[in-house]
Amino acid sequence: MAEPLRIALAGLGTVGAGVIRLLAANGDLIARRAGRSIEIVAVSARERGKDRGVSLDGFRWLDDMTEFAALDEVDVVVELVGGSDGPALALARKALAAGKGLITANKAMIAHHGMELAALAEANAAPLRYEAAVAGGIPAIKGLAEGAAANRIERIYGVLNGTCNFILSEMATTGRDFGDVLAQAQALGFAEADPAFDIEGTDAAHKLAILAALAFGTRLDFPSVDVTGIDRIRAGDIAQAGALGYVIRLLGIADCEDGADTARLFQRVAPCLVPVSHPLAGVTGAINAVVAEGNFAGRLLFQGAGAGDGPTASAVVADLIDVARGNVPPPFSLPVASLAASAPADPGHRRNRDYVRFMVDDRPGVLAEITAAMRDAGVSIESFIQQGHPDERDGRPVLVSMVTHEGPEAGVAKALSLLDGSPSMVEAPLVMRLLG
Amino acid sequence: MAEPLRIALAGLGTVGAGVIRLLAANGDLIARRAGRSIEIVAVSARERGKDRGVSLDGFRWLDDMTEFAALDEVDVVVELVGGSDGPALALARKALAAGKGLITANKAMIAHHGMELAALAEANAAPLRYEAAVAGGIPAIKGLAEGAAANRIERIYGVLNGTCNFILSEMATTGRDFGDVLAQAQALGFAEADPAFDIEGTDAAHKLAILAALAFGTRLDFPSVDVTGIDRIRAGDIAQAGALGYVIRLLGIADCEDGADTARLFQRVAPCLVPVSHPLAGVTGAINAVVAEGNFAGRLLFQGAGAGDGPTASAVVADLIDVARGNVPPPFSLPVASLAASAPADPGHRRNRDYVRFMVDDRPGVLAEITAAMRDAGVSIESFIQQGHPDERDGRPVLVSMVTHEGPEAGVAKALSLLDGSPSMVEAPLVMRLLG
Repeated sequence: MAEPLRIALAGLGTVGAGVIRLLAANGDLIARRAGRSIEIVAVSARERGKDRGVSLDGFRWLDDMTEFAALDEVDVVVELVGGSDGPALALARKALAAGKGLITANKAMIAHHGMELAALAEANAAPLRYEAAVAGGIPAIKGLAEGAAANRIERIYGVLNGTCNFILSEMATTGRDFGDVLAQAQALGFAEADPAFDIEGTDAAHKLAILAALAFGTRLDFPSVDVTGIDRIRAGDIAQAGALGYVIRLLGIADCEDGADTARLFQRVAPCLVPVSHPLAGVTGAINAVVAEGNFAGRLLFQGAGAGDGPTASAVVADLIDVARGNVPPPFSLPVASLAASAPADPGHRRNRDYVRFMVDDRPGVLAEITAAMRDAGVSIESFIQQGHPDERDGRPVLVSMVTHEGPEAGVAKALSLLDGSPSMVEAPLVMRLLG
Repeated sequence: MAEPLRIALAGLGTVGAGVIRLLAANGDLIARRAGRSIEIVAVSARERGKDRGVSLDGFRWLDDMTEFAALDEVDVVVELVGGSDGPALALARKALAAGKGLITANKAMIAHHGMELAALAEANAAPLRYEAAVAGGIPAIKGLAEGAAANRIERIYGVLNGTCNFILSEMATTGRDFGDVLAQAQALGFAEADPAFDIEGTDAAHKLAILAALAFGTRLDFPSVDVTGIDRIRAGDIAQAGALGYVIRLLGIADCEDGADTARLFQRVAPCLVPVSHPLAGVTGAINAVVAEGNFAGRLLFQGAGAGDGPTASAVVADLIDVARGNVPPPFSLPVASLAASAPADPGHRRNRDYVRFMVDDRPGVLAEITAAMRDAGVSIESFIQQGHPDERDGRPVLVSMVTHEGPEAGVAKALSLLDGSPSMVEAPLVMRLLG
C-alpha cells in the first residue's frame, strides 16, 4: 500500500470531531478503498482543553493553524473553521501557496474567494475541493462536475438550506406562523440563535453561486445572486399554496444564457411554489436536494442530509479519498482562466407564473383596485382567492392572493408599483414564483 | 491541450447513436472539461447501411468489432452491443487484454462476468467503467463508489427498472390490471415485445448485484439474487396498499452482514410496499432511483432517467471524461483480489412487516382457515382486509389481504406452507414486504 495521506485538521467543532470519529470508525475500509490510509497528524482549534467527545491523543497540536502550511509532514489541510475571511482564509491561502491540498466545508469562503483560491491551487498544483460546502453529505458537486460532465447544464436548482426547509415543512404540517416555528427550530437546534444568515437566504445563496459556477463554467458571482428570505411567509400563504396543489420551498435557481460577449447568468434564491408532484415537494425537514437539468441526461436529482456532523464529515472525507486516489480535477471543473465572464441576467424578461399575496384592509373597492392595477400592467390573472369567510371579517386585515398566467416578471413588478403607496395595503405584497 | 482520447464504438443502436449525437453537440464543452477532446475514430455494428439518423462519415468502419482491440489508434472501446456473452464479451476480453479501456452499458455482461473483466482490467492497467449499466443516466455508481466512499454502506436499494415502474405507476393511476397496462406499455415502447427480462425482475437483479458488490466490497454474486417479478400484482393489491398508505414499487434491496469467515450477502428484487412519505414513493413512470444508506452520510438518494438514448449516452460519456481526466479507480472500487467472498444470507431470520394477499373462494370458514394458519405459525396480524361488498359476492373469488406485525420471514413462510394445497385457495398467496 502507498504512503498514507497525512492531514491537518483546523477547527474542532461538531464537523471536525465528526471527521475524527469517521476516520476512527471507517479508517480500515477507507484505506482499502483509497489504496492508502488517511491519517490525521495535526489539529488546531481555538480552545485546546475543551471536551469534544473525541480523543486528540497522537495528533500534534498547534495554537496557530496557519502554521500547518509549513509542516513537512502535512499533505492536506482540512479547514473546518468557517467564516468567509479571517483565519480560515488566511489558512487557505497559506496552505495552497505552500502546495498543500485544501479541503473545506466553508461555503462562505468559497463563494467569496473561490476564484482566488482556485487560481492559487492551480498555480501550486495543489488539490482544492469543497464537496461539504454545498448540501452537506450529498455528493452534489461530484454529481454535477463529474457525473453530469457530458451535459450542457440548462438549469440547476434545489433546496439548499435545511433550516429554512425545516421551518417551511413545519409550518405546513402544523399550520403555525413563521415566528412560532422559528422559535421551535431554535429550541431544537435546527436554527441558530441569530438565524438571519439562514432565513434571509444568504447561506443558500453561497451554495447557489458555487453550483452555478460549476454548472455553467462561469466565474463565481455571489454578489449578483438575487436573494429573498422566508421571513415574510405566512401560514395563510402555505394554506393557499396547498389549496392550489403546491408547497412552498426556499429554492436556489440558476441558469445561463450565452450572450454576444458575456454569458447572462441568472441566480436567484427565493421562496417558490413547487407542484406537489415534483420531487422537491417531497423534500421535507432538514433534507437538501439538488436538481441538475442536462441537455442529454435530463433531470438528475441528488438528495440527502444537508447538514449535521456525520453527513458533513462524510463529504469531507470523500474529498480526501479522491485526493488520496489522485482524482483531482480543476476546482471549478475548468481551469480558472477559462471560466467565462458573466453579467447578471435581466429578470424582467423572464416568463413565470407568479403567486402574489396582499394583506389588505377589508373594505369596498380593494379588489377592484388590485385587479385594475394588474389589468393596467397587462398581467393576466389565472385564479384569485380571498381568504376568510364573510362573517369573520371584522375589520382585521384580509389575505388576498392570486396566481397569474405566465408572463414577464416586469409585468407583475409594474402592477405592484402601481399599487405602491395605496392606503389599502397593510404591508408590501409578497411575490413567489411557481417552479415551472 | 493534451492528446485526444480516441474511442471505438461497438453497437450503433439508439444508445450508440446517442453517444455520437452527444459528442457532436457537446464536444467542445467536453474537451474543455476533460482537458482533451474525445474523438470517435472507429465504429462497428451488425448492419453497415442502416439509417441511424447520424452520420458515420469520418469514422473507420469494421465489420468485426473485436478487431478494435488490435487498432493502435484506439485508446478506449465503448461496448453498446448488449448481451451477457457472445460478441460483447468477446470484445470486452480482447480489448482489456490489449490494454484498451472499456466503457460499457451492458449490465448483463457485468453482472455475469464483472469479476473476470475487472481482473483483466487490473492486470493490463486498463480502465473499465460501466456507469450506464446501472440506472441509466444517473451517476449512481459514481455516487456510491466515490461520493459515499467514506461510509460503510448499511443498505442499498432502489427502483432499478423503468419498465416495471412505468407499469406499476400506470396501474396505480388508472386502476387497471397488469395485463392491460403491459399491453399499453408495449404499444408505447416502454416494454419490449418479450417483456420477461424486465417484468420478471432479471434486469433489476443484474443492476442490484453490481451495486451490492460496489457497496459492500464483496465479489459479484448475481446467481444468488432472490428475484420476484411484478406479473402477479393485481389492481386490488395496489388499491389495498393505497388504502394503507403505501404504493407498490419493484425494489432491488441489498445488505451485508459480516460473518465469522464469509460475509452474508442479502440481495433481493421483489415488489414491495413503500410508504407514501418515502422518497421512492414519488418515483413514478420510467424514472429510476438509488438509495444508499451510509453509516455517516445517512440516506443518500440519486434519481433520474433510468433509460433512453440521451441519459444512457450521458453516463457513457461521463465515464469517458473520467478516463480522459485520469480518474480510474478499480472497477469495483477495491482491487478484485481484496473483494470479500460472500454467502447468501438466510432470509428466514429477517424481520419484516409483510403484506399477504389471498385469492379465495368466498365460502364460510375461509377466513378462519387463514387466521388459524397464521396463529399456528406464530404470525401476528396487524390489519386484515376483505375486498368487495357482501352484495357483490356471487361465488367469484375474493381478494383477502393482511399486513403482519413485524416478525421473521420464516413465520409467514410456515403459515403459507400450512395453507398449501387448501381447496379454498384459488391461486398461491402473494407476499410483499413493507419497506422499513
